[in-house]
Amino acid sequence: MMIFTSLLLFIFAVLLACPLAVIQAGKPDGDSDGKQLRVNARRIEERILALGEYGKNPQGGVNRVAYSEEDIESRKYIISLMQEAGLSIKIDAAGNIVGRREGREAKLPSILFGSHSDSVPEGGSYDGNLGVLAAIECVQVLAENGFVTRHPLEVIVFTDEEGGLVGSRAMIGKLTSDALEVVSHSGKFVREGIRDIGGNPDKLAEVQCQKGDFRAFIELHIEQGSILESENIDIGVVEGIVGINWWNVTIEGSANHAGTTPMNKRRDALLAAAHLITAVNEVVTSEPGRQVGTVGRIAAEPGAPNVIPGKVVMSLELRDLASEKINSLFEKIQQKAKAIEQNSGTKISFSGIDVMAVPAPTDERLRKIIAESAHELDLSSQFMPSGAGHDAQDMARIAPTGMIFVPSVGGVSHSPKEYTRPEDMANGANVLLQTVLKIDQGSLE
Amino acid sequence: MMIFTSLLLFIFAVLLACPLAVIQAGKPDGDSDGKQLRVNARRIEERILALGEYGKNPQGGVNRVAYSEEDIESRKYIISLMQEAGLSIKIDAAGNIVGRREGREAKLPSILFGSHSDSVPEGGSYDGNLGVLAAIECVQVLAENGFVTRHPLEVIVFTDEEGGLVGSRAMIGKLTSDALEVVSHSGKFVREGIRDIGGNPDKLAEVQCQKGDFRAFIELHIEQGSILESENIDIGVVEGIVGINWWNVTIEGSANHAGTTPMNKRRDALLAAAHLITAVNEVVTSEPGRQVGTVGRIAAEPGAPNVIPGKVVMSLELRDLASEKINSLFEKIQQKAKAIEQNSGTKISFSGIDVMAVPAPTDERLRKIIAESAHELDLSSQFMPSGAGHDAQDMARIAPTGMIFVPSVGGVSHSPKEYTRPEDMANGANVLLQTVLKIDQGSLE
Repeated sequence: MMIFTSLLLFIFAVLLACPLAVIQAGKPDGDSDGKQLRVNARRIEERILALGEYGKNPQGGVNRVAYSEEDIESRKYIISLMQEAGLSIKIDAAGNIVGRREGREAKLPSILFGSHSDSVPEGGSYDGNLGVLAAIECVQVLAENGFVTRHPLEVIVFTDEEGGLVGSRAMIGKLTSDALEVVSHSGKFVREGIRDIGGNPDKLAEVQCQKGDFRAFIELHIEQGSILESENIDIGVVEGIVGINWWNVTIEGSANHAGTTPMNKRRDALLAAAHLITAVNEVVTSEPGRQVGTVGRIAAEPGAPNVIPGKVVMSLELRDLASEKINSLFEKIQQKAKAIEQNSGTKISFSGIDVMAVPAPTDERLRKIIAESAHELDLSSQFMPSGAGHDAQDMARIAPTGMIFVPSVGGVSHSPKEYTRPEDMANGANVLLQTVLKIDQGSLE
Repeated sequence: MMIFTSLLLFIFAVLLACPLAVIQAGKPDGDSDGKQLRVNARRIEERILALGEYGKNPQGGVNRVAYSEEDIESRKYIISLMQEAGLSIKIDAAGNIVGRREGREAKLPSILFGSHSDSVPEGGSYDGNLGVLAAIECVQVLAENGFVTRHPLEVIVFTDEEGGLVGSRAMIGKLTSDALEVVSHSGKFVREGIRDIGGNPDKLAEVQCQKGDFRAFIELHIEQGSILESENIDIGVVEGIVGINWWNVTIEGSANHAGTTPMNKRRDALLAAAHLITAVNEVVTSEPGRQVGTVGRIAAEPGAPNVIPGKVVMSLELRDLASEKINSLFEKIQQKAKAIEQNSGTKISFSGIDVMAVPAPTDERLRKIIAESAHELDLSSQFMPSGAGHDAQDMARIAPTGMIFVPSVGGVSHSPKEYTRPEDMANGANVLLQTVLKIDQGSLE
């Protein structure tokens, strides 16, 4: 009887405990949803500095372009951290490092989060690195607290982001064979580089993912602009990665003697270009929104101080979250160009050289989850576009994607002067952790 | 008696005839001042074509840069024409060809006229050539009509005009030893080139002339602009050769990510440059006069379509007949630049790299003589500056200088498409001839 009673009590206790165990996921202190979990700010900072030693340059930044010796060495360090966090490592055919932690419900798709660890030439120690180390930190905190999620978690380190989103492009099946033959910043062909970091460029098809493969993708990144810092906001909730359109603009006038050609008889291509550059600025700034327009490159021929320029070729770049906005801005610029043509006696033509990127909006539900997470952490947040490209723009095609920004001091990026304060890195990592947990707990289902 | 009477009659006749002979200078038909003398239009045209064979290029122009094989051969042809006109030839130490015809009054200074025969690379057959061939034609007409002037006449073919007025610079003592070490268009050092055409670069001091050495210097030249043609004027009376000032303009902004830097946070050096280029045009065109201002060269750094330009370096050239005008235009441009600096957050600096040329006004009396000569020939004329540089600007420092322009079709010059109609060439040569005769007859004394 005693035994029977004990058995009943035991079964009763197990029945009582089981759902709790399932919810608490091995977390015994009552924080069943992990809302009290916090990343280790100091550890993130230490690892940022440690990772920054790989390819460190005299200016205090890093020169760690994809496939370089420094990149290869740093990946070993990153893998060691992932293993320390209990992740099981796989290098996929594109060279992406994927560290997996199983969840409680084997059939659920994984929640993917991470960023990249390669740099531009003469870059900084935060771009990409923070997203990778914060992702590892999240898993490490979960492991240290014995918190097991429902979904499998996967931390990803994308291959060669700075050379054209190589790793994420492979995952959406858009890494063409042409792209493999490009010479990367390292001097190696991309194909060769992928092999050198443990991938297999002949088996890229294996990497391609489908919608549904992931519950979500989340990337934490430094802003690379100055909006958050100047407006004193902790967290940027990225509305999407802007579309980028490029044009070559050719202005044809008439090269002539700068001494013998009176002002009213000139067809000065550079003067017309100057009017067009100011017109681009007027069009882009004359309506509300975060759209940007840039003329970054210009060449005037023949290019002598004493010859009126007969031809100018310049670039035009427009970025916005909406293709429609880009199109309407471009139309207005073309109208201005028509007027300039008539006033200057020149011919202006636009040749779209590449749709560099189509706008990639983030998942609306994820924006709310990120904002909520920030709010619960007592952090201010603001919705904003990402003006720069990120692997998230590829991932948005196959998974609900969210992106978290933290302030860049002075808005500086792609420079040894790139810097993000430790507290901001920790804030971003905490928002990442809470966002992952909210997704895990069904916010997207 | 018969013999005596005959002798008396003879002496009488001689006494009667002598003063007439002096005045008529051997011209028996009563045209004592040569006003009826006309050049041979067809001969000028034929010789322009013949001279254009030296260095002729497939586009129909000439490639006959100073000191080249083509230049050396063409000089032989020119010398043969000068000899045919009865000129005695001297090559001075600077390589200038000077053909002299003695006058009746040995003590008078000579009247100098001519131009140059070298071309720019891929140049035309009229620039310089017309002035040389028309000068020879004038002497040939005088010789054919037995017309002997009071003054010695000297026809000059200046060395390497297109490379920096080398021949005339030597004549005013301004051909520095540095200039001799410049590599000319021919690939030869100027020093070497001068030697190859028969000069002696070690004896340039011999070439230097003083005020008073010449009664006057006159140059006939194609306009190289389109004013005469478009206004349907036969003859341009050059008021002077404009001064030319050059500046390097540096605009310093802040290079930044074109995606992540909002429009209102930019310090775009190219946008500021565009405002400055339009401001230069506004300043130069907002007041009456023939002044011109040109931005012909521009470079933007770093020069990528997706980076906001942080630095622009561009040229600024101002030309006018008056230094004061150039200075006041430049002051206004600097004021505009200050406003642009403030609006754009950039720093704009001007560095005067060289006073390319100080304004060289022609002799006022000579302008009148040229205009009068045109009028007497039933040709329309107009006062105008020369926007291009000419040997006349050097000669104006040591001699009363006049310059005659004839129309350039389409204003095209320094191009195989350069063209001046035969009738316009003949008009110019006739004005040159009559101008020389007026000077000879004392208009400047």
